[in-house]
Amino acid sequence: MNDIARGLEGVAVAETRLSHVDGERGVLIIGGFALEELAPNATYEEVLHLLWHDRLPTTAECHALQRQLADARELPAGTYETLQRAAHAGAPAMDGLRMGVAMLSLADPDPTDASTGAQLRRAVSLVARFPTLVATYWRLVRGERPLDPDPRLPHAANYFYMLTGEVPDAAVVRALETYLNTVVDHGMNASTFTARVITSTGSDMVSALAGAVGALKGPLHGGAPGPALDMVFEIQARAQRSGRSLAIEAESLIRGTIEAGGRIMGFGHRVYKVRDPRADVLGAAATRLFERAGDLRLYEDARIVEEVALRVLHTLKPDRRLETNVEYYTALLLHGIGMESALFTPTFAVGRAGGWTAHVLEQAAQNRLIRPSSVYVGGRDGHWVPPDGRDPGLRIAS
Amino acid sequence: MNDIARGLEGVAVAETRLSHVDGERGVLIIGGFALEELAPNATYEEVLHLLWHDRLPTTAECHALQRQLADARELPAGTYETLQRAAHAGAPAMDGLRMGVAMLSLADPDPTDASTGAQLRRAVSLVARFPTLVATYWRLVRGERPLDPDPRLPHAANYFYMLTGEVPDAAVVRALETYLNTVVDHGMNASTFTARVITSTGSDMVSALAGAVGALKGPLHGGAPGPALDMVFEIQARAQRSGRSLAIEAESLIRGTIEAGGRIMGFGHRVYKVRDPRADVLGAAATRLFERAGDLRLYEDARIVEEVALRVLHTLKPDRRLETNVEYYTALLLHGIGMESALFTPTFAVGRAGGWTAHVLEQAAQNRLIRPSSVYVGGRDGHWVPPDGRDPGLRIAS
Repeated sequence: MNDIARGLEGVAVAETRLSHVDGERGVLIIGGFALEELAPNATYEEVLHLLWHDRLPTTAECHALQRQLADARELPAGTYETLQRAAHAGAPAMDGLRMGVAMLSLADPDPTDASTGAQLRRAVSLVARFPTLVATYWRLVRGERPLDPDPRLPHAANYFYMLTGEVPDAAVVRALETYLNTVVDHGMNASTFTARVITSTGSDMVSALAGAVGALKGPLHGGAPGPALDMVFEIQARAQRSGRSLAIEAESLIRGTIEAGGRIMGFGHRVYKVRDPRADVLGAAATRLFERAGDLRLYEDARIVEEVALRVLHTLKPDRRLETNVEYYTALLLHGIGMESALFTPTFAVGRAGGWTAHVLEQAAQNRLIRPSSVYVGGRDGHWVPPDGRDPGLRIAS
Repeated sequence: MNDIARGLEGVAVAETRLSHVDGERGVLIIGGFALEELAPNATYEEVLHLLWHDRLPTTAECHALQRQLADARELPAGTYETLQRAAHAGAPAMDGLRMGVAMLSLADPDPTDASTGAQLRRAVSLVARFPTLVATYWRLVRGERPLDPDPRLPHAANYFYMLTGEVPDAAVVRALETYLNTVVDHGMNASTFTARVITSTGSDMVSALAGAVGALKGPLHGGAPGPALDMVFEIQARAQRSGRSLAIEAESLIRGTIEAGGRIMGFGHRVYKVRDPRADVLGAAATRLFERAGDLRLYEDARIVEEVALRVLHTLKPDRRLETNVEYYTALLLHGIGMESALFTPTFAVGRAGGWTAHVLEQAAQNRLIRPSSVYVGGRDGHWVPPDGRDPGLRIAS
């Protein structure tokens, strides 16, 4: 049927001042700023203030927000034990995060307070605890002792510290904040939309964010930045073994994958028909990070693989307009600051939590129940008879 | 702006064979059967089989499904302790249910198995545990010892037993099954849509159902059947005190509420513009239940209040087409089987779990990422300057 909007492509469900995605021009605006203006410069706290209050904070407001976030990092009673159980069972990190987020209503002193002030405190409270949940779970799964948050550290630095036990240097913090800022919001993506649908029923912010984490977990949304980098490693290994150039091995692997019907991870996006602007911002951040570390080899190899991938994709799939997406440089940048690929999607969630909370506030402020319809294609005149009167071969329901 | 489908009214997002809601004619079809044909006759297990397999089961299939469900009722390790913690903190029952459902992936022996068989086993596993979660949490909150599931009892009877410690008689089971069947599915409602959006990212069934529970919690969706009955009780009490008739007190309270800008709970629905067919099915079930108990007074009083409410609503809001909705008779029927109003929405979730799982299976079988768009109304040319350069009075982001 032509009348079914299965993917809701191009169906606008809200006005928003939070972000603007122009997929034809490759533009992303966050809270009034071009991504490349905001992401590499601002702290994550500044971006939170921008999304929640529609303007960048003053110095005093920066410090106040950083303090509020630092004060809200501890997990509510019982959450730690739940994460322990899940880690003991070997649950994936995004499952552990979903379980932990679902419990964060226990940190709410008055869940019935629907005032704007209470909603803003909830946003602070939830965003502050995402790094604690991810880092605690990560260390539990690996059999390491979880670390207490360090209230002297800002949001991004504290996240890195809680993961690794090391206070990161300025270059790592800058790279991580650039990443968190880059993914903080992105129009009406599936997880943000999930949060808004849940909010539209009059439900609470914890329910909205637990649903959003579940949506982000899916590989078609946030769940697959790892494989993009794995492909680069695989090509490096093949070149090492064969002695042939990286470009030749890249062409061989990518062409073979596509011809076998496989998908090249890190390329193509539902909305962007030109280069994803986030790829450029993350690529530039990766260059700075790798240059500073004095080792540009992985970065340069990734650029070679990208060039080959784009050429092959444009040749073999000329009608698809496939360009490098955010996943490719996400993988490179987060790998560059020492994260394993199993942390990429949870770290995406740490960044996106800011956008989710801002969308919940926006939806609640001008709410309408989001309830689409469906087209029925089943039978209509079934007659119920007791089970022993049913012919096993007969389809009753048609 | 006219181009924004804020509530997605009338926007069809899927073909479905699961249910059909015709709001103009007051018709609800579930899996090929008119609601009034199916709900008062079938067991809940039969309806699950109908939704999952597109036909009613044979006697042998009924028994097999009942056994599978009974075998899957135990909570995975750690869930009980999480519920204890939440109950200790006094969290609402829907919050406890969200936390519990979020953990059910721990019961999955192989979360990576995406086969149809594994998906169906997951559906059984999840639906089976909803009554255990709700009843365990309910008893913990009240300081009562939670009960083990009784594998000899079918789904609905076991739920009642786990709540109360009593094996229900046939009339109570029939009333409860009629309720669960009546709410098992209802087109593309907000919680079902939430489950489908989460599934559309390639995420898992537990994530989808945890999101759906969060959406159902909202008072604009499943979260408010209690107040409809509270209004009847309040009118009874006023008539008792004043000595005037129920109808006079009903008219006074309802007229006063509307004139003060308040809302009369139990009337009006986004989709139904005529009488909600579920109200009739539940009303008939309530009559049978109350007649059998030999006490029709509450039922008759509720009918009087309903008549007055409809008359007053049609007089004061002639353009609104407000009719009795499912909440009004939900409250009456569930109260009739001895449930407190705090159990109404969790019991709604116990019934709707069947529909949610069926929609997840349907969405996954013919998937497309659900990602709408939004209209940006913020600024576009903000320039980032360090915090100390910001004029506190200046809105940077415009």
